[in-house]
Amino acid sequence: MNRAMVRFVIGRILFITGLLMLPSVAVALYYREGWAGVWPFLIPIAIALLLGTALSFRRPKNPDFFMREGLVVVGITWLSLSFLGSLPFVISRSIPSMVDAFFEAASGFTTTGASVLSAPQALLHSQLFWRSFTHLIGGMGILVFALAVMPRIQSDDVFIMKAEVPGPVFGKLQSRVRGTARVLYIMYLAMTAILTLLLVLGGMPLFDSLLHAFGTAGTGGFGIQANSVAYYANPYIHYVIAFGMLAFGVNFNLYYALLYRRMKGAFKSEEFRWYIGFVAGALVLILLNTRNLYESFSQQLREVFFTISSIMTTTGFTINNYESWPLFSHVILLGLMMIGGMAGSTAGGLKVSRVALYIKSSFQEFRGSLNPNRRLPLRFEGKATGNELKTKVFQYLAIYILLYVAFLSVVAADAGDFMTSFSAVAATFNNIGPGFGAVGPSRSYQELSDLSKVALSFAMIMGRLEIIPIIALLSPRTWRRT
Amino acid sequence: MNRAMVRFVIGRILFITGLLMLPSVAVALYYREGWAGVWPFLIPIAIALLLGTALSFRRPKNPDFFMREGLVVVGITWLSLSFLGSLPFVISRSIPSMVDAFFEAASGFTTTGASVLSAPQALLHSQLFWRSFTHLIGGMGILVFALAVMPRIQSDDVFIMKAEVPGPVFGKLQSRVRGTARVLYIMYLAMTAILTLLLVLGGMPLFDSLLHAFGTAGTGGFGIQANSVAYYANPYIHYVIAFGMLAFGVNFNLYYALLYRRMKGAFKSEEFRWYIGFVAGALVLILLNTRNLYESFSQQLREVFFTISSIMTTTGFTINNYESWPLFSHVILLGLMMIGGMAGSTAGGLKVSRVALYIKSSFQEFRGSLNPNRRLPLRFEGKATGNELKTKVFQYLAIYILLYVAFLSVVAADAGDFMTSFSAVAATFNNIGPGFGAVGPSRSYQELSDLSKVALSFAMIMGRLEIIPIIALLSPRTWRRT
Repeated sequence: MNRAMVRFVIGRILFITGLLMLPSVAVALYYREGWAGVWPFLIPIAIALLLGTALSFRRPKNPDFFMREGLVVVGITWLSLSFLGSLPFVISRSIPSMVDAFFEAASGFTTTGASVLSAPQALLHSQLFWRSFTHLIGGMGILVFALAVMPRIQSDDVFIMKAEVPGPVFGKLQSRVRGTARVLYIMYLAMTAILTLLLVLGGMPLFDSLLHAFGTAGTGGFGIQANSVAYYANPYIHYVIAFGMLAFGVNFNLYYALLYRRMKGAFKSEEFRWYIGFVAGALVLILLNTRNLYESFSQQLREVFFTISSIMTTTGFTINNYESWPLFSHVILLGLMMIGGMAGSTAGGLKVSRVALYIKSSFQEFRGSLNPNRRLPLRFEGKATGNELKTKVFQYLAIYILLYVAFLSVVAADAGDFMTSFSAVAATFNNIGPGFGAVGPSRSYQELSDLSKVALSFAMIMGRLEIIPIIALLSPRTWRRT
Repeated sequence: MNRAMVRFVIGRILFITGLLMLPSVAVALYYREGWAGVWPFLIPIAIALLLGTALSFRRPKNPDFFMREGLVVVGITWLSLSFLGSLPFVISRSIPSMVDAFFEAASGFTTTGASVLSAPQALLHSQLFWRSFTHLIGGMGILVFALAVMPRIQSDDVFIMKAEVPGPVFGKLQSRVRGTARVLYIMYLAMTAILTLLLVLGGMPLFDSLLHAFGTAGTGGFGIQANSVAYYANPYIHYVIAFGMLAFGVNFNLYYALLYRRMKGAFKSEEFRWYIGFVAGALVLILLNTRNLYESFSQQLREVFFTISSIMTTTGFTINNYESWPLFSHVILLGLMMIGGMAGSTAGGLKVSRVALYIKSSFQEFRGSLNPNRRLPLRFEGKATGNELKTKVFQYLAIYILLYVAFLSVVAADAGDFMTSFSAVAATFNNIGPGFGAVGPSRSYQELSDLSKVALSFAMIMGRLEIIPIIALLSPRTWRRT
């Protein structure tokens, strides 16, 4: 491995992270929070800028940067980001425990939205701002951001993008990665701005609108009130956020295509049709299942649609306590948690494209076993999928299940009931946020043991990075010099 | 499809099934149960013999019999077997409801052992005998039995064996299927006889010993007392059954190899080492997790070892209420439920060989992503596994999960809590028997709704036949004339 290059890139990213903490300082000054608001950020900013400069001071002579280096950079970045991001919480004593603060920061950057705070509204504005700002940073990926703004490192930036942007790659990545990254980020920020505007128009205060737009854009879901979005008792706001979440669960390549090519190409996307299909199917099933619980259909439709959109896109905002729904609805929601959003979106989960491939592949196997001599190749997005891609997608499922069971064992060792443990892993590994039972929408992750919190922090980071980069960090083979 | 041939083979099997009910009549006569004991069997025997003769009276001219015909025969046989097998329960009114009786019979033939009876000891001896005898019939497979005793149909019997004997095929099946089937059945019955003898030597009554040997051999697990094997308060009996279950969870090809070849070959089996590894791993973890619950280590070891052996081999006998163990142990047991026994054994589940392949394949993916240019082929049982086998094994996992979620949705719609629904599907789809919560070891499946019972009956049959034959029945393509 080219360690000098890894050190150099990480240094650059640390420096950028330091700069990204400055807006929170501005918020502290704007709200006249004084020293108590400002100084929790000064130490981490100082660490980030000094360490970042030290690490990237000398440009390495050998600029080789390949897949292995990309994985290691991504893995180290996300771990150190979560550590650095937790310092403001610890220093301000808004979250005094280091484990809790690390959990909260990892939850923010990975856009999970699982919180240890039962009353976030008690926090200073600057703290709340930083907490939600991590969603914005983490949504599109700090490294993709770095690619977009950093001076050119080397032509193999594609390896960073591959390691950080979730989902299996079905289409070709743009060859000019830097240009793509910049366009993606501009679209991302523009959509966030539009969302903020729509919320302000609905009567939500500007500060709240910004933070909810961050949470929606990153599909994060940190609420700033104890009862999340339910606090804003305005159907318009609920629908804006519900459709906003759905929009950010869409593969950004589709928006890219909309921008540069014909409209038609985007709507021909098979993954998009599966995505809408899952949402529509879940909507019908849950509406039927909860029909006796509501007096007003408009309220039922709003709450069910909001919850499905929130869970499917792995955001985690809530406007009702869906715990009161029957178990059947919970099972449907658990299924949506696993599926997640589209590949190449800010959402987590297995991704719609993988799940679609599992389903299509199953049906192919049924047909194949009836006609062993006439096996047709599996088609996805109009193209025949090779055996190599199919094997990779299935291996991902096997890895996913193995890790799921491992995390479940750890959490089960201290949580009391099965639904709490099972859904806590589902809600963190898939980057959603709230689960069921003791980690349900009206509770927080505060009650879990430190061991569980550390395990779930890793689950969030592994889920966000699609596992491999963290495994790469743990493998001795990675660290061999070449 | 060659319908004439399907009809003919099913006729033959129905006839044999009728004959297989005669021992129960003998039991009724031996225990002087009179007309009440005998007549519940006369109607199904008459149906089976008459219908069987009618269907197989005329030998078809075209004896072609391929995979598709094999799947259909297996599917129809198992459904009609479960129906026929339920009649004695309904007629005798030991289980008056048709749905309950179908559930019980399907549970017997599929060697699940899930029961709707909370007090089986109240039944007549002949009824209890038939109930456990279905385990013996179902364990090795009625069709393999038919192959062993029936006059030759055609040379393509291999398709029946492939469709009925569980597990992916890694080695070559013997080319002389009929001969193999006969040897397998002789070994199976000999081991059952030895087990009966060992139980009688431990002081268990002969009748009870026979029925428990049937339940162990088929990895079924119907108890004949409300508290299952706990009723026999003798550690010797517990250990005989525990090791007996483990022995029947082993791939019968290994015993075949032991019989005909060197000892060494059998112990070199990679699947066998994984099997022992899973049992040993679970033993250590659960012993540690339950160490504070027991005063005596010998009792703890016996209860934990028995439970692991019972669950892993998908038998379902119990000697203690493992519900009182902590959640961590339950998660381990749920994992073992999914894994199941070795391929080619009488056990259910995903099978050890598949799970081993998932795990090895995951690690291969980790290594491969670090060294994209140096991908090594995956080796299992000392041979490189081709992409086709790997894809098939992974597709099975995807189908398994899809059906799991489907069954879970049905059961969740009427069961109250998640652990009950989740474990009810795990315990039936993997052919184990008792689960957790309302379907735990001290309860029965009686409380579930009829819809759930029908769904779980299908889950048992699909689990036993590894899904495909039942799907084949439902596909219109199967029924086209060729």
